[in-house]
Amino acid sequence: MGAVRRVYVAGVGMTKVDKHTETSLRDLAAEAAFKALDEVGNEKPEAVVVGNMLSSLIEQENLAALIADHIGLRGVCGLKVEGACGSGGVAVLAGYSMIASGLYDRVLVIGVEKLLERPTPDTLRGLAYAADADYELIYGVSFAGLNALIMRYYMSKYDVRREELALWSVIMHQNGAKNPYAQLRNEITLETVLSSPVVADPIRLYDACPLSDGAAAVYITSEDWKKVSDTPILVAGVGNAVDSPDLSSRVSLDEFYASRISAEKALRTAKLDIKDIDVAEIHDAYTITAAVSLESIGFAEKGKAAKLWSEGRFRPGDKPTINPSGGLKSRGHPVGATGVYQVVEVAMQLRGDFPGVSVPSEIGLTQNIGGVGSNVTTIVLRR
Amino acid sequence: MGAVRRVYVAGVGMTKVDKHTETSLRDLAAEAAFKALDEVGNEKPEAVVVGNMLSSLIEQENLAALIADHIGLRGVCGLKVEGACGSGGVAVLAGYSMIASGLYDRVLVIGVEKLLERPTPDTLRGLAYAADADYELIYGVSFAGLNALIMRYYMSKYDVRREELALWSVIMHQNGAKNPYAQLRNEITLETVLSSPVVADPIRLYDACPLSDGAAAVYITSEDWKKVSDTPILVAGVGNAVDSPDLSSRVSLDEFYASRISAEKALRTAKLDIKDIDVAEIHDAYTITAAVSLESIGFAEKGKAAKLWSEGRFRPGDKPTINPSGGLKSRGHPVGATGVYQVVEVAMQLRGDFPGVSVPSEIGLTQNIGGVGSNVTTIVLRR
Repeated sequence: MGAVRRVYVAGVGMTKVDKHTETSLRDLAAEAAFKALDEVGNEKPEAVVVGNMLSSLIEQENLAALIADHIGLRGVCGLKVEGACGSGGVAVLAGYSMIASGLYDRVLVIGVEKLLERPTPDTLRGLAYAADADYELIYGVSFAGLNALIMRYYMSKYDVRREELALWSVIMHQNGAKNPYAQLRNEITLETVLSSPVVADPIRLYDACPLSDGAAAVYITSEDWKKVSDTPILVAGVGNAVDSPDLSSRVSLDEFYASRISAEKALRTAKLDIKDIDVAEIHDAYTITAAVSLESIGFAEKGKAAKLWSEGRFRPGDKPTINPSGGLKSRGHPVGATGVYQVVEVAMQLRGDFPGVSVPSEIGLTQNIGGVGSNVTTIVLRR
Repeated sequence: MGAVRRVYVAGVGMTKVDKHTETSLRDLAAEAAFKALDEVGNEKPEAVVVGNMLSSLIEQENLAALIADHIGLRGVCGLKVEGACGSGGVAVLAGYSMIASGLYDRVLVIGVEKLLERPTPDTLRGLAYAADADYELIYGVSFAGLNALIMRYYMSKYDVRREELALWSVIMHQNGAKNPYAQLRNEITLETVLSSPVVADPIRLYDACPLSDGAAAVYITSEDWKKVSDTPILVAGVGNAVDSPDLSSRVSLDEFYASRISAEKALRTAKLDIKDIDVAEIHDAYTITAAVSLESIGFAEKGKAAKLWSEGRFRPGDKPTINPSGGLKSRGHPVGATGVYQVVEVAMQLRGDFPGVSVPSEIGLTQNIGGVGSNVTTIVLRR
């Protein structure tokens, strides 16, 4: 069944995705939070939900208490939610539940991550905690290595050339160049991708999203409290599904089962069809992730995603436009914050005030992925 | 306001709290989960919520996907919730919200923690992630050290002797000795506590709970689905509140503000008074934590808790009976699981089938604390 109370996005905020060496995790979270609070006239929220994956790397847990206290909200309800790189999306789902339940009317969801504070090898090892420590990491495989396995299998099965996949990065950098919040704002060529260093064959550096610091916040409310905003956006549907982190036990490597299930659930609760979506922010951690996600969600047939974007589909002006923000590739991927960035970006598209590539739209979708498709949250927003 | 749909505990399960060196984290979680699922005729849940704080120490995140997959629940909704040592309680709150919202009818909440897999200094450092890394840990203070500050202040302010506080441990070991799931089942004397090694003066080893491995699970349902159980227990109220992790910025050191606020919220939503509580499981990580919690919740006046338990209050047969399980001191404290253990134990007291000290009761309360009172969840259960 669907939720018994409606939930709205009433305020949003985000920091530029960047290397924020001089800003602490709590200050980064506060910057995004204060922007969202400012949009709702600083109406005090009753709960703070934090999405984060890897604050353990900087020896800090208990983030909900830490951040709520730092922004002057001592005494509110607080929890941290984690679902690997999908932590932000599932934090929005938790906040949504807390309002739909009637427990609260105003919840501030904050996604925050600092990946660039520790040396890169430590961070890369931390990101691999999304995989299966006992069955995968023990063999020394990296997170990029796992995605490379999928990319090779996919290219072989569907006869897709790496040039076709690489084009995704070029398109994303075109979009991201116009987004003032994006981390990588330079336009690139196909040659940039194809000649970049190999990360885990066949994945090259420009097939992969960057390591990022960033924070994003959404202030969500019940029907009674959407009045705190002039432009409330309905959270029409949410869905989440998990799959085995261990790739060797998957039924399929060229479809993300959890992506499909979570998208179906979100669309069903929103009483909408995939064809209704005007704009979407999806989880293109690698070029191969863009292709498999687009197909698993239902925006493309299996093996056809790269063909479609090569023909010009998914670009600004098309329905759906995918990742006008520049996606994980160009906007960046502060992992536990990414799912919240997506909701901020799509809400702003529906409001008509996204400061980058603007897509006039009524209905939007976000999909945030944890692990290699092992924890996936889909959210449908409606103007 | 309160929740718009009622929520029930329909099935429970737990492992013995112990040093589970030969059992992986996922197997430990599965053992508790299968017991809870067995109680509801293995009716498939729609979502899995995992409470855990420190799986990063064993290089594993993404626990909801990992555990759901391991117990045959691929495709369900999954999230991990963290609130330091209060992760289990706040995981129950998240699961409660997901049902009360109407999103789901059947949610399996699993608390799991393995603290004894890594060398003790690593684990103790990890536990200190509950404190403030920038303002506290940087000075080298341990989690026990922070609690020792409170104990010294409390003893001085209220003229409470350490023998009075130490008695709490003796009572807890009496209760825990009868609990087959407890970690420390030996009875002890006041002399055992007073002569045990100093951990952080004035806290001695037997003032502190042990380091523990363990898992507990509660299967919760909507009104429509409580029929999967012959003995459903109503979750009458829930409340959570956060406080500053950094003790130096607290308004008060001898009261846990978040404990008081969360207990008030839970009782208010349950439309009950503190005097209605027959049995409670509270968070006695240290003897001082028992005293401050009992007073913050409202079971004792400020500075009077130790006096009351010295006079025989809170023991089996009294109303309220506190920690018939043996509490954190004797049952043990597998941190992210503890809040779920408490709900399992109180639900079993209300059902009349708790296998240790049995307390005939209609109404029970649990309170789970993260950090030094910085993330506190209170849950009220009713037969």
